[in-house]
Amino acid sequence: MKKYAIITAGGIGLRMESEIPKQFLCIGDLPILMHTINRFYQFDNHIKIILSLPENHLKYWENLCKKYKFTIPVTVVKGGKTRFHSIKNALDIIDEDGFVAVHDGVRPLVNIATIKRTFDKAEKLGNAVASSDVVFSIRKIEGQKNIGVNRTFYKEIQTPQTFNIQAIKQAYNLEYKKEFTDDASVFEAAGHQIYLVNGNRENIKITNSEDIIIAEALLNRIV
Amino acid sequence: MKKYAIITAGGIGLRMESEIPKQFLCIGDLPILMHTINRFYQFDNHIKIILSLPENHLKYWENLCKKYKFTIPVTVVKGGKTRFHSIKNALDIIDEDGFVAVHDGVRPLVNIATIKRTFDKAEKLGNAVASSDVVFSIRKIEGQKNIGVNRTFYKEIQTPQTFNIQAIKQAYNLEYKKEFTDDASVFEAAGHQIYLVNGNRENIKITNSEDIIIAEALLNRIV
Repeated sequence: MKKYAIITAGGIGLRMESEIPKQFLCIGDLPILMHTINRFYQFDNHIKIILSLPENHLKYWENLCKKYKFTIPVTVVKGGKTRFHSIKNALDIIDEDGFVAVHDGVRPLVNIATIKRTFDKAEKLGNAVASSDVVFSIRKIEGQKNIGVNRTFYKEIQTPQTFNIQAIKQAYNLEYKKEFTDDASVFEAAGHQIYLVNGNRENIKITNSEDIIIAEALLNRIV
Repeated sequence: MKKYAIITAGGIGLRMESEIPKQFLCIGDLPILMHTINRFYQFDNHIKIILSLPENHLKYWENLCKKYKFTIPVTVVKGGKTRFHSIKNALDIIDEDGFVAVHDGVRPLVNIATIKRTFDKAEKLGNAVASSDVVFSIRKIEGQKNIGVNRTFYKEIQTPQTFNIQAIKQAYNLEYKKEFTDDASVFEAAGHQIYLVNGNRENIKITNSEDIIIAEALLNRIV
């Protein structure tokens, strides 16, 4: 089975002068994005890794690779105007059958077992999405009110989200909707049932400075 | 306005030999539970603090207070067989009007502003519950399937949850149900509408060893 990973690292980049995007910041001794790529390479060193980067970050990434002597083979694809368009661009360059994991560049703490679970289940059922239990109480907003809901009926969704390549390519022919917050929502809109596998609790998405501190603290616990 | 805080630190305790409960472990230089109590004392040094502890942890707590020279005045109340029964026991000893914040002992990273927001809004509307946006995709389990839901319609619930004292005492006269996962769910079952205020993102519930590492990392960022 041919395996691909699309690592998504933002669509249209912020101006780099104002703020360095989170995926380029270091945790431990390496930029976040390199940790993330390393995970997939450790999972399977024959996996084909496609990195989706905003056009105006390409040069910065190249320089970062030189600085950190980062030599894992990666095909870089320009991001689109939304995450949806970036993934579509990346899928467009895949021309063989097999399975593809789509993963957030800012989730460097995914473990090998999680990646493996998504590929194993996707091979059987066509797709598999990493998820975890909701561990806090949740309430649902309904108009001006909010009501308690039973959290055991909900799952927190992570990445990787892994799909049969032909099927996900076809799903991405749908017209873009802003409700497409992840690949599972696109795949579902194309008529497929989504299958969940357990992720790992440390597999957080780094979106703010607290998350950097948390990720740094958790880094040494991931295998 | 009279202010109370009920800090809840477990119902029936685990055998202490096997594992020290999380609230007694240190982050920084102080046990978690003392950080938590400190927050409420810093918010208002006239607040009356009631600590709900399992009976078989009382002696351990006393010794901990001596060891850390912890002198903030706290009324200790024995926990019940569930969180619901523990809170009920604690409410039973309050015999004046005012407002009471119920807070998890293992949320030491609540900030002063969050506590203040719950008291301010509860004073106006009868209750206020700390909450935050759901920052990840969620899916809902429906039978054998799961479906994508719009996360902007959901809120993650934290503590403190702050209430008019007479009203919450009355709500706790309801018969216990296992769906009562927090005080808001009890108050809601008694016929009240729940009001939300913003919590703070660092205000995590420490339930496992990863959380201890995270809390330690975030501790210095809280004001």
